[in-house]
Amino acid sequence: MKAYVLIKTAGGKEDEVLRRLLSLSTVEEAHKVFGQYDIVAEVRGRDMETIVEIVTARIRKIDGLLDTHTLLVVDPEIDMASSSLAS
Amino acid sequence: MKAYVLIKTAGGKEDEVLRRLLSLSTVEEAHKVFGQYDIVAEVRGRDMETIVEIVTARIRKIDGLLDTHTLLVVDPEIDMASSSLAS
Amino acid sequence: MKAYVLIKTAGGKEDEVLRRLLSLSTVEEAHKVFGQYDIVAEVRGRDMETIVEIVTARIRKIDGLLDTHTLLVVDPEIDMASSSLAS
Amino acid sequence: MKAYVLIKTAGGKEDEVLRRLLSLSTVEEAHKVFGQYDIVAEVRGRDMETIVEIVTARIRKIDGLLDTHTLLVVDPEIDMASSSLAS
Amino acid sequence: MKAYVLIKTAGGKEDEVLRRLLSLSTVEEAHKVFGQYDIVAEVRGRDMETIVEIVTARIRKIDGLLDTHTLLVVDPEIDMASSSLAS
Amino acid sequence: MKAYVLIKTAGGKEDEVLRRLLSLSTVEEAHKVFGQYDIVAEVRGRDMETIVEIVTARIRKIDGLLDTHTLLVVDPEIDMASSSLAS
Amino acid sequence: MKAYVLIKTAGGKEDEVLRRLLSLSTVEEAHKVFGQYDIVAEVRGRDMETIVEIVTARIRKIDGLLDTHTLLVVDPEIDMASSSLAS
Amino acid sequence: MKAYVLIKTAGGKEDEVLRRLLSLSTVEEAHKVFGQYDIVAEVRGRDMETIVEIVTARIRKIDGLLDTHTLLVVDPEIDMASSSLAS
Repeated sequence: MKAYVLIKTAGGKEDEVLRRLLSLSTVEEAHKVFGQYDIVAEVRGRDMETIVEIVTARIRKIDGLLDTHTLLVVDPEIDMASSSLAS
Repeated sequence: MKAYVLIKTAGGKEDEVLRRLLSLSTVEEAHKVFGQYDIVAEVRGRDMETIVEIVTARIRKIDGLLDTHTLLVVDPEIDMASSSLAS
Repeated sequence: MKAYVLIKTAGGKEDEVLRRLLSLSTVEEAHKVFGQYDIVAEVRGRDMETIVEIVTARIRKIDGLLDTHTLLVVDPEIDMASSSLAS
Repeated sequence: MKAYVLIKTAGGKEDEVLRRLLSLSTVEEAHKVFGQYDIVAEVRGRDMETIVEIVTARIRKIDGLLDTHTLLVVDPEIDMASSSLAS
Repeated sequence: MKAYVLIKTAGGKEDEVLRRLLSLSTVEEAHKVFGQYDIVAEVRGRDMETIVEIVTARIRKIDGLLDTHTLLVVDPEIDMASSSLAS
Repeated sequence: MKAYVLIKTAGGKEDEVLRRLLSLSTVEEAHKVFGQYDIVAEVRGRDMETIVEIVTARIRKIDGLLDTHTLLVVDPEIDMASSSLAS
Repeated sequence: MKAYVLIKTAGGKEDEVLRRLLSLSTVEEAHKVFGQYDIVAEVRGRDMETIVEIVTARIRKIDGLLDTHTLLVVDPEIDMASSSLAS
Repeated sequence: MKAYVLIKTAGGKEDEVLRRLLSLSTVEEAHKVFGQYDIVAEVRGRDMETIVEIVTARIRKIDGLLDTHTLLVVDPEIDMASSSLAS
């Protein structure tokens, strides 16, 4: 399964948060962006439990991170397939 | 009467805030969620005064809670019924 | 699994959208609310696939509905338990 | 009881929506504003039922109105007092 | 001229912020609300300069206040009249 | 006085809305942007009445425009100066 | 260069919009999501001009698409590198 | 290239943040505003790298600044022209 995590950081903490995100093996990509958020991270995990664990126990605990908005991918055929394999 | 309280917490404080919410007898349910908010709490009270008291004097004072958005249920027939019974 | 679906409707369509929502067996509760949204629906399904199907193929196709914001419940211990039982 | 109704209208419909709002006896004040909304209406009613009826059956049905965000006043001592007198 | 100031406060600081707002002579009304904001204040001043001074030098400096969104009333005939009298 | 008008347009209508904006003498600059809005227009007028007239009677009536968020410049010393000269 | 395009669609149009997005060679990935948006598309182009052309002339003209929020990737070292190679 | 940076500041820090912004040679204009943001800054740079450097290394590190939303100007013909000259 996959999720996009839209992140706001404290001013000037973007590079530090980005480095911490990229050090996590479950974060496939993470980029600084312009717009209403400061960073987008792409997270991939075997199942929902893994995604939840990454977002709440790892990402949201990074120092300097202020706010997250997680967009969980819910394509029935593609991502759900990997989810049913896992069960 | 009933209200949904959409909650943002400081990073990594979700479990602690959730435990505090679930310890309140007037909180019927509370769940961690993915989306623009971190937790949804369902609050039920005899009347408006009770709901207001729970949200402002109890929930909003929980440590680690950053922002709330309260959606008050206003179904005329169902929830208002319990409200007029109370008067 | 459970999700809260925050809904905006076209003006004056709240009652009609609410009736349509309450006619769906997978919608446990649905209420008109005051705040940034007009209706909150609580949806419950056996697994992610079911929730996705309800939200995208049923709820979002209701006439008069303008915008939805789905908050998926991600409590690891409680709701995930029912999810692993289902597999 | 009192509520502030923040309103977005279709482009160029502000004056018409404003006139319709001001023709309602329960709308105490209504003004065009600059910011994220186009109009603010102040609504006053004897009790919750009245406020809900005004907002959903009257205001939200005005042609040209696109979106409302109702902020219900919940001061315990002042507005609640008038509410308990009504019961 | 008039402005509505939509306010978010730190958790549990609503009553204190409300008291501070009500002590300002230029704040006509201020109420705790349910919705995306915690307090709405109605501010009235002789002209734009006064409104700006109240909002930025008084209201936004209140301890415990986190965020404001000012909706300036721009009705051409009514409020602008008082503005042209002032010049 | 000056205002920034943040604009959302219907899909594919950006160029047409932009051309219409740039044809108005009171619109100093207008640009397509990436972010939560599609276009930013900079509007300048002799006084508040002019700004209000431009935004509500001209800009908001442009076909294909869906939503505006007007940020009125309120610098006391600079822009207010030109405003008091006008009176 | 890369951009994330957060998309809201009309109710029930997600699958159609998704198919149209995936038919564009410059859209690397596109997924239905839960949260404040309905679809996330990942767009890649040789330079800014290409990204802008894809988003405004292709993506935003898709029927059933209501709103987009483009988050442009601005990592200085990585994505800018490909951008300077292109010049 | 040009960008509009929409800024929220801590209460009472607007003047200080504004002074810091105006001391940067790359900030063409910066104004206090009424609406959902507190300050708008107009930033101009030779190319994307410069804009990114200004926003993330200069502006977002200013003390008292809480949140930024950068709207990058993407007019193909005008601003892109200066961008292709730079390459």
